[in-house]
Amino acid sequence: MAVKDVKKVVLAYSGGLDTSVILKWLQTTYRCEVVTFTADLGQGEELGPARDKALMLGIKEENIFIDDLREEFTRDFVFPMFRANALYEGQYLLGTSIARPLIAKRQIEIAEQVGADAVSHGATGKGNDQVRFEIGYYSLKPDVKVIAPWREWDLTSRTKLLEFAEANQIPIAKDKRGEAPFSVDANLLHSSSEGKILEEPWDEPPEIVWQRTIRPEDAPDKATEITIEFERGDAVGINGERLSPATLLTRLNALGRENGIGRLDLVENRFVGMKSRGCYETPGGTILYVAHRAIESITLDREVAHLKDSLMPKYAELIYNGFWFAPERRMIQAMVDESQKSVSGTVRLKLYKGNTIVTGRQSPNSLYSMKHVTFEDDQGAYDQFDAQGFIKLNALRLRLGAMAGRKGGAV
Amino acid sequence: MAVKDVKKVVLAYSGGLDTSVILKWLQTTYRCEVVTFTADLGQGEELGPARDKALMLGIKEENIFIDDLREEFTRDFVFPMFRANALYEGQYLLGTSIARPLIAKRQIEIAEQVGADAVSHGATGKGNDQVRFEIGYYSLKPDVKVIAPWREWDLTSRTKLLEFAEANQIPIAKDKRGEAPFSVDANLLHSSSEGKILEEPWDEPPEIVWQRTIRPEDAPDKATEITIEFERGDAVGINGERLSPATLLTRLNALGRENGIGRLDLVENRFVGMKSRGCYETPGGTILYVAHRAIESITLDREVAHLKDSLMPKYAELIYNGFWFAPERRMIQAMVDESQKSVSGTVRLKLYKGNTIVTGRQSPNSLYSMKHVTFEDDQGAYDQFDAQGFIKLNALRLRLGAMAGRKGGAV
Amino acid sequence: MAVKDVKKVVLAYSGGLDTSVILKWLQTTYRCEVVTFTADLGQGEELGPARDKALMLGIKEENIFIDDLREEFTRDFVFPMFRANALYEGQYLLGTSIARPLIAKRQIEIAEQVGADAVSHGATGKGNDQVRFEIGYYSLKPDVKVIAPWREWDLTSRTKLLEFAEANQIPIAKDKRGEAPFSVDANLLHSSSEGKILEEPWDEPPEIVWQRTIRPEDAPDKATEITIEFERGDAVGINGERLSPATLLTRLNALGRENGIGRLDLVENRFVGMKSRGCYETPGGTILYVAHRAIESITLDREVAHLKDSLMPKYAELIYNGFWFAPERRMIQAMVDESQKSVSGTVRLKLYKGNTIVTGRQSPNSLYSMKHVTFEDDQGAYDQFDAQGFIKLNALRLRLGAMAGRKGGAV
Amino acid sequence: MAVKDVKKVVLAYSGGLDTSVILKWLQTTYRCEVVTFTADLGQGEELGPARDKALMLGIKEENIFIDDLREEFTRDFVFPMFRANALYEGQYLLGTSIARPLIAKRQIEIAEQVGADAVSHGATGKGNDQVRFEIGYYSLKPDVKVIAPWREWDLTSRTKLLEFAEANQIPIAKDKRGEAPFSVDANLLHSSSEGKILEEPWDEPPEIVWQRTIRPEDAPDKATEITIEFERGDAVGINGERLSPATLLTRLNALGRENGIGRLDLVENRFVGMKSRGCYETPGGTILYVAHRAIESITLDREVAHLKDSLMPKYAELIYNGFWFAPERRMIQAMVDESQKSVSGTVRLKLYKGNTIVTGRQSPNSLYSMKHVTFEDDQGAYDQFDAQGFIKLNALRLRLGAMAGRKGGAV
Repeated sequence: MAVKDVKKVVLAYSGGLDTSVILKWLQTTYRCEVVTFTADLGQGEELGPARDKALMLGIKEENIFIDDLREEFTRDFVFPMFRANALYEGQYLLGTSIARPLIAKRQIEIAEQVGADAVSHGATGKGNDQVRFEIGYYSLKPDVKVIAPWREWDLTSRTKLLEFAEANQIPIAKDKRGEAPFSVDANLLHSSSEGKILEEPWDEPPEIVWQRTIRPEDAPDKATEITIEFERGDAVGINGERLSPATLLTRLNALGRENGIGRLDLVENRFVGMKSRGCYETPGGTILYVAHRAIESITLDREVAHLKDSLMPKYAELIYNGFWFAPERRMIQAMVDESQKSVSGTVRLKLYKGNTIVTGRQSPNSLYSMKHVTFEDDQGAYDQFDAQGFIKLNALRLRLGAMAGRKGGAV
Repeated sequence: MAVKDVKKVVLAYSGGLDTSVILKWLQTTYRCEVVTFTADLGQGEELGPARDKALMLGIKEENIFIDDLREEFTRDFVFPMFRANALYEGQYLLGTSIARPLIAKRQIEIAEQVGADAVSHGATGKGNDQVRFEIGYYSLKPDVKVIAPWREWDLTSRTKLLEFAEANQIPIAKDKRGEAPFSVDANLLHSSSEGKILEEPWDEPPEIVWQRTIRPEDAPDKATEITIEFERGDAVGINGERLSPATLLTRLNALGRENGIGRLDLVENRFVGMKSRGCYETPGGTILYVAHRAIESITLDREVAHLKDSLMPKYAELIYNGFWFAPERRMIQAMVDESQKSVSGTVRLKLYKGNTIVTGRQSPNSLYSMKHVTFEDDQGAYDQFDAQGFIKLNALRLRLGAMAGRKGGAV
Repeated sequence: MAVKDVKKVVLAYSGGLDTSVILKWLQTTYRCEVVTFTADLGQGEELGPARDKALMLGIKEENIFIDDLREEFTRDFVFPMFRANALYEGQYLLGTSIARPLIAKRQIEIAEQVGADAVSHGATGKGNDQVRFEIGYYSLKPDVKVIAPWREWDLTSRTKLLEFAEANQIPIAKDKRGEAPFSVDANLLHSSSEGKILEEPWDEPPEIVWQRTIRPEDAPDKATEITIEFERGDAVGINGERLSPATLLTRLNALGRENGIGRLDLVENRFVGMKSRGCYETPGGTILYVAHRAIESITLDREVAHLKDSLMPKYAELIYNGFWFAPERRMIQAMVDESQKSVSGTVRLKLYKGNTIVTGRQSPNSLYSMKHVTFEDDQGAYDQFDAQGFIKLNALRLRLGAMAGRKGGAV
Repeated sequence: MAVKDVKKVVLAYSGGLDTSVILKWLQTTYRCEVVTFTADLGQGEELGPARDKALMLGIKEENIFIDDLREEFTRDFVFPMFRANALYEGQYLLGTSIARPLIAKRQIEIAEQVGADAVSHGATGKGNDQVRFEIGYYSLKPDVKVIAPWREWDLTSRTKLLEFAEANQIPIAKDKRGEAPFSVDANLLHSSSEGKILEEPWDEPPEIVWQRTIRPEDAPDKATEITIEFERGDAVGINGERLSPATLLTRLNALGRENGIGRLDLVENRFVGMKSRGCYETPGGTILYVAHRAIESITLDREVAHLKDSLMPKYAELIYNGFWFAPERRMIQAMVDESQKSVSGTVRLKLYKGNTIVTGRQSPNSLYSMKHVTFEDDQGAYDQFDAQGFIKLNALRLRLGAMAGRKGGAV
């Protein structure tokens, strides 16, 4: 047992079989009071049953917390991350990673409120989520006790888990009897699948894996055209209609779903040191990413854009590894947010069978100067002769190098 | 006049109207001998007419150089760049940028061979290409004289150019009488269009702009499945057939073309300080980029991959800005190449209406360990309890910060 | 002539021979009204004579601007830069670079106030200062006309300059008749010398070059002990006495001078592409740099400190190259400033014959935890067993690599 | 007990009390054969007694390994690191960090040779050294068993340790009876002290801490002038005399010692998450660092130097954290080594009471061009007018920004 003498623990509780077993296991192992916290992060499940099940498992009414966090999730976590164009390992939009800190934060808030000394979660000892949860906990409440049942108990096989459930009168949904063919995590930003039948990276994922988008092949034969409006780096409307963050993301998800947008089949590097294969669906997020880059393309200064890009991999890694509530993440965020002041305007897109195609961008803050770039007569806006000096001085060190025998940029 | 006393100049000569005018202008302005150099970089044009035209304009047989550089271009320029997953500003595959250094290099080789003291090109004073050509020239031959007619002459309008052509008996193709609606550059890697009717970034590019790919809407309704084989970071075969670099890229271009893959409509930041809008088609390159990332995903160590990613924006910027023949590019290349030793294996892809979808990857050098990652019993390969110490020490500085009043990662 | 039709020009005027010649040359060449601006940046010269000389050269009373900018210089330029621990090329404290933007800013403010359409400075066409001035001008007033006489006129030798001065009744100080053996720039942060007798990098600079510090050999045989107090990253007091920024820096300069601190003899890389040799004296700044790092060492989170360090070379390069008034500098500054919120406390130092030795540091915001680090019994603050899991998971990817044949970190 | 069933273990054995206790504890706890490995890394202690003590403690002759690794240490570890100008947290020359991988490597080589299945070391569970040793072990022999007694046993106080020693007939040197006032590590590169009386970072270290350098106050009143010769980035001679790596470093240590050079009193951030205070003496290394930067200043291209500097903090962090035998360290090393091809020449230095002062640098590969930089007439080597275009295009994006309302680089 990693920690001792637990009085009251706040459990991140989904209402599913695994966290119900954990709930019971906490009660029996630590003989402590259990407080459940269930969040609606847009995973697309009813939360009512979670309450019923918690009650049935003996949790007191006042110890059951159920929150709709969809707006907070989108506004304070997803949108700030999208300001940075964050992609982990060049591809992954960090849909799971970004949800964990919010859950951790709410758990700690509840722990402070109910006077709990411990928190617990249902993530395994092999994955990234345990790190994300626990770094969040420790950063927000440094003396908190953390219980990670999957790292501690001996319910190491499906059979043992079911036996424990039966022995403890935990109801088991019929479809949970057999083992799921893969593991799923979902929230408003994305749905991820991994494990079991997906463990061989040479095998194509079966269609059943994809739950949140239709096949590009099944999407409409005609493109859907939309506009997205931005203010200070955040999307604020679709087709001219102003929408709250979560509503907007929900709409984009629907648009993405029906156009087969946002599937990703990836082998990635976990923080704990192994490679894993995940299948991600981020329909709305994929559209948002493309649109945000497009609005930045006319509103950001070049060096600002390049500086952002150079820090993006670090920022994405921080979020992936669980360091949302770390000062270095906040520092980069401060820089990123500073860059977004002028990132306002409209992007027009075509959505078509898996493709998100930019067809136009405009902004009151545009730095694009047709007067300068034009192939036509520019009326003296730009003196082409300046380019000669520009090139000659940029080349000077290379010329000096070549004269010293280092031709062609020999080091 | 920027330079004086030119005896012999090597001109990058396409055979088109503009460089023919330059040819004549060089003869008349500098009263120097002109050597023409025309390269086949896979732009898809016959080179025979360039020779005829040069002869007709009075260039001596021995002063006409025409080279097929497609293999060298792909092997020594495109492939090394793709090892780095280079994307300028997160999106652009650098199709034009990567061709310029090779042209510059050949021009300088010819200049050394024929004893020329000057080189000349047809790039304008507003763009990046002048920089790329000239930095290449200076780096390879530091005392070379550079003539950039577009920055010097007074043929500043289409009308004046045509008048000069007529006055000098330069044949004008019928379709060049009127002004082209946009400007095009092409080579084996890509085709780019910009200017004129594309100058308003809010307007969608007309279909006529896209010359190298069919519309995704017109692509087959059924996906094309292929495999690409890699060795040490480079693609070496398609569907098990071993191919030379240029042949392979040509095949991928055909596959990309017919599946509507590789279109990009972008506002980018030029090195000379202005934003411009370009429409790029990189059919084969887009497929190659996706496949290369996929084979890296199972063969690269995590930190190697992240280090590469962190330097990629810098590397891409160097190439975009024209610093191929600069020591800092060579240094990053040395690092990138070092990382590719184990990047061998096979990637399976589906090409479908604009989408390039990875469906499998395998390698004899794979670092993916099913034994470790599995959701099933791992026979002790991984001790989940290790994660506790890992997390606790990763969190220690944050806990100390929180205890000192900086909760949640407050800076 | 680079620009035309100048009506009124604001000249950065030192009162010395060179800028007096420029003053006259502007009047005669552009036939425009000249406004002089002379700043006290702590260079240690009386400004009264500059006023007299300007009047004598026919400048109207209302066109003479003389400002004491020492506090603004230290508070808004030097101190923000020191928050970043900026060192160019690992060594140079950027004393000249940081003064130029403030001069440019004041010149533009005066230009706006007096309705001038142009500005002018006395920097040569080979150095960095022209870039720093002019990028400042353009960034603050994009339509301003810039006159850089040294790039334009034909007074290319000392003799011609003196002839022009005599022909125009410009008084020439006796000691300016002969040529100075090197060129000097000075302000409250530093004094720099370069050129002429310093041009051979193998020759040791003669003692006469060092004007602001005594020889370490001549400094007291006994160390001087001081404390410096910091608040939010800035020094606010010495030995417990609260001081304004410029007063504090002046005091540190005196302390540094008498202890032989802050000399640097350096070959550096100029933005224009050549290497140059400079001899710098930054007595107070050197002490400040050491002290700032020391107070950061106990107040900054590790990753915050490392992130700052990773961006420092870029930040220093921006300032060196003249991009103070550029958005990317402001972005990094935003990040740096964010990091300094807790950088308060006291550092104790010994100053001794060129050495600045930290002997103690303390802070109410210290993150140093004796309880954790102690070699004595730590009462369970730290569980040594956590280290095992920490190490094992940090090593996992390397073990997997070694098992795949890449032992010892083979790539 | 962290590992089980150990048959034979290779212990990093110093011959001192602590590792002798470990030796005995391994025998009694694991009932396994113990092989001792003692290295001469220039720590300045006789190794004979280590052999005698090992024999006395029952180690078989063939199980005692004693190696003089000073040349390998300097040539293959210290020198490559100095090519990068590595400083951890801006100040620390990594003297301890760089020695650990070599010890780990030799231990593993011996383990392979004698057929041992385990290795052991005497580093505590709070420090960095455990990480450095063990990451080295795992990377070189992924299946090795690692025993870290300090993390496992119950000899948690000095008293218990001495009791164990006495109970096991381990001789205790008289001066080890009482507790040492601080802990020391030493090798040819440096000597470090930490712990106990040094734990309060506000207290000045007593003079007794400094063992390898005399007080600057006690150093000669006259500077010592030397030259150091470099070839391809490595020092190869002093005062014109060619020396092997270890001999050279030994000489520099003597020069540094007698001139009071290389003391550092630092609070640093450990990899395990806490801050600690260390007092380091790196006399020869400090001289070498200054000299290497000086020879680079005339031989490296600007962008090469800046690229190196931008990666240096990462490289230093890798070494500090123990990732010498990791592929990302090898990748950066490949880049660094590539940059050193032309770093040959001579640096002249003055050593004086703690100061290392560069007084000259020269190289056959110098990129310093007096012809270009001169204040005198440069015969047209550099056209000052080029600077105008250079500045105007560098400023263009800022002018466009200012015209769009973002004056002074507003983001």
